[in-house]
Amino acid sequence: MVHAPTDAPTRERLTSVAAADVAPLAAGCAIFGTGGGGAVYTSQLATEQALEASGPVELVTVDDLDADDAVIIMSGIGAPTVGIEMLSSASQIEALLAGAEAAAGRRITTLMAAEIGGSNGVSPVGWAARLGLKLLDADGMGRAFPEATMIAMNVAGVACDFAVMADVVGNVVTMKTVDLAWLERHARAVTVASGGLCLGAHYPLTAETARGAVIEGTVSAAVRVGHALLSSSEPVRAVADELDASVLISGKVIDVARRTEGGFVRGSVTIAGVGSDRGRLQRIELQNENLIVLEDGEVLATVPDLVTIVDSETGHAISTEMLRFGQRVSVLAWACDPLWRTVRGLELAGPQAFGYDLPYVPFEGAQR
Amino acid sequence: MVHAPTDAPTRERLTSVAAADVAPLAAGCAIFGTGGGGAVYTSQLATEQALEASGPVELVTVDDLDADDAVIIMSGIGAPTVGIEMLSSASQIEALLAGAEAAAGRRITTLMAAEIGGSNGVSPVGWAARLGLKLLDADGMGRAFPEATMIAMNVAGVACDFAVMADVVGNVVTMKTVDLAWLERHARAVTVASGGLCLGAHYPLTAETARGAVIEGTVSAAVRVGHALLSSSEPVRAVADELDASVLISGKVIDVARRTEGGFVRGSVTIAGVGSDRGRLQRIELQNENLIVLEDGEVLATVPDLVTIVDSETGHAISTEMLRFGQRVSVLAWACDPLWRTVRGLELAGPQAFGYDLPYVPFEGAQR
Repeated sequence: MVHAPTDAPTRERLTSVAAADVAPLAAGCAIFGTGGGGAVYTSQLATEQALEASGPVELVTVDDLDADDAVIIMSGIGAPTVGIEMLSSASQIEALLAGAEAAAGRRITTLMAAEIGGSNGVSPVGWAARLGLKLLDADGMGRAFPEATMIAMNVAGVACDFAVMADVVGNVVTMKTVDLAWLERHARAVTVASGGLCLGAHYPLTAETARGAVIEGTVSAAVRVGHALLSSSEPVRAVADELDASVLISGKVIDVARRTEGGFVRGSVTIAGVGSDRGRLQRIELQNENLIVLEDGEVLATVPDLVTIVDSETGHAISTEMLRFGQRVSVLAWACDPLWRTVRGLELAGPQAFGYDLPYVPFEGAQR
Repeated sequence: MVHAPTDAPTRERLTSVAAADVAPLAAGCAIFGTGGGGAVYTSQLATEQALEASGPVELVTVDDLDADDAVIIMSGIGAPTVGIEMLSSASQIEALLAGAEAAAGRRITTLMAAEIGGSNGVSPVGWAARLGLKLLDADGMGRAFPEATMIAMNVAGVACDFAVMADVVGNVVTMKTVDLAWLERHARAVTVASGGLCLGAHYPLTAETARGAVIEGTVSAAVRVGHALLSSSEPVRAVADELDASVLISGKVIDVARRTEGGFVRGSVTIAGVGSDRGRLQRIELQNENLIVLEDGEVLATVPDLVTIVDSETGHAISTEMLRFGQRVSVLAWACDPLWRTVRGLELAGPQAFGYDLPYVPFEGAQR
């Protein structure tokens, strides 16, 4: 399947990422995290340090890849709450690269982020710098999702040949599973045995298999969104304009119902409008990420379209575990990559994949 | 460390295992299981079928191995209760062999049992037949133990380079862990994710590393003990003579306190003497295997020495999960391999390794 990137053709692409780009990258990745994907702050610090030590990372497109190139995806796996405290070691990414090259039987030249949302969008930049690899200006989700099956290559029908996991102790596990659902199950078990957090390398890709099977331009897009956020005096408006997003409501958090269940954060948040939105109420359903926005019994936006709650003053994304009573927030919603709107995309990541008995209605902008 | 096998020099060694040897092998492995190691019946059937289909398996000694030989250990991993119902597939052992050869970077020629006790002593004979491999007349425990760390090669200081696990679904996981405690932890997690039972290949050995680091002659010994059991009109006495074991008591099970906890069966069984033992009471502490025999506050025998409860009529071993009120039983105890009596052996598998604040007193025969 070949699809056109949502916004890439008309917008500037970066050709490298330098230390000065990391702050906007982190702010942008938090926006694409739709409430999940892990806190970006420690990733931001580690990535800045890596780029200062090793210099900028070359950012390439799928078109730049040739027959000698081999791409591997690296990401953190585990509970974001553990990730705040358990840092990774330099030897983990070296073990991953060695394990991936052994399993692939060839040299790896290029890294890609599994998800551009949250810390998993930021960290691969630093890992590429430390490992001397190129970084693909793309990711596997165009946002953040909670499970391994919810990845663009799976939508496109590309099989995952193997996964390598490394923990901070020095244990390395290589998995060849019959499908991504089994990979999710086994990888989650090993992650728990390793203390709740691992780094993983999986989904080896080539120029051929990557084409049309990844979501392109997302590293550049995250830096662009972060720049808009950090440089504007009206950051919410600037971010919305950059993303072609709608502001569904501006208001105040008046209720947070949140429980940790089966390794996920689930619940809902209720927002009461202020100013011109006074009198309106919206409820957002959560599972790690923001999933569905409801108002007066009507669905305004639903997964896989993107919903991010931002601070109304600063424009910075607020992740689901940081939502608190009384926060002044704005709710942004925008259209997902077209790949997620295919039959297979919705089967893997539509509202029903999250247990909601709701049809998917594509988000095309605010109706009111 | 080089040690002399306990009983080998004076006793006959088999040079092959044929279908007709499997029934005595299974009965003998159950005796060496000391109450654990998994029920032997389905393994016996599968192994008989494999030997009928593929012919006898060549049984070799460490001295027979040359520089071209590479040994791998194969075993079932998981709860014996699951093993009764979940059968393995032919493709699992093929996947294990392929995974082990890939990880070792060489052809594997020889299989060894991780533990001679229970089904893990029986099944490798059939696997060797199906895979066309030789079988080493040796194992890693000389009995059964519940954890991966409790293995002779670990006592001898030989590192485990890797482990490969395969489940019945087709998932294959290769692990390189920093030590056996981490291997136990990760392998247990993957086993649970696979539904409670996996087959595993681990501890690659060569002629050099195997010497003095495995317990030799145990396949022959299990067949010999099984023959004694099945061919005698006084099977308890015949087994005791063959093993140089003492009969600590003959009596009746009057209490079984047993709970499943942390993936193990724990508890104790109380036996009241009958006949010439009338008036005596013994309690045996359990963790999957029989660990410690107590009478009048005195320790009569303790792990790593071997304690097996047998049916007083048939001589067949009764595993810890099959103990029932009213059974007529005899308790056999005999000395473990000298390797387990070293400082390192007792550190890994002495009474304190099982949480008992007791010194190890070598079992040298019944005192009364």
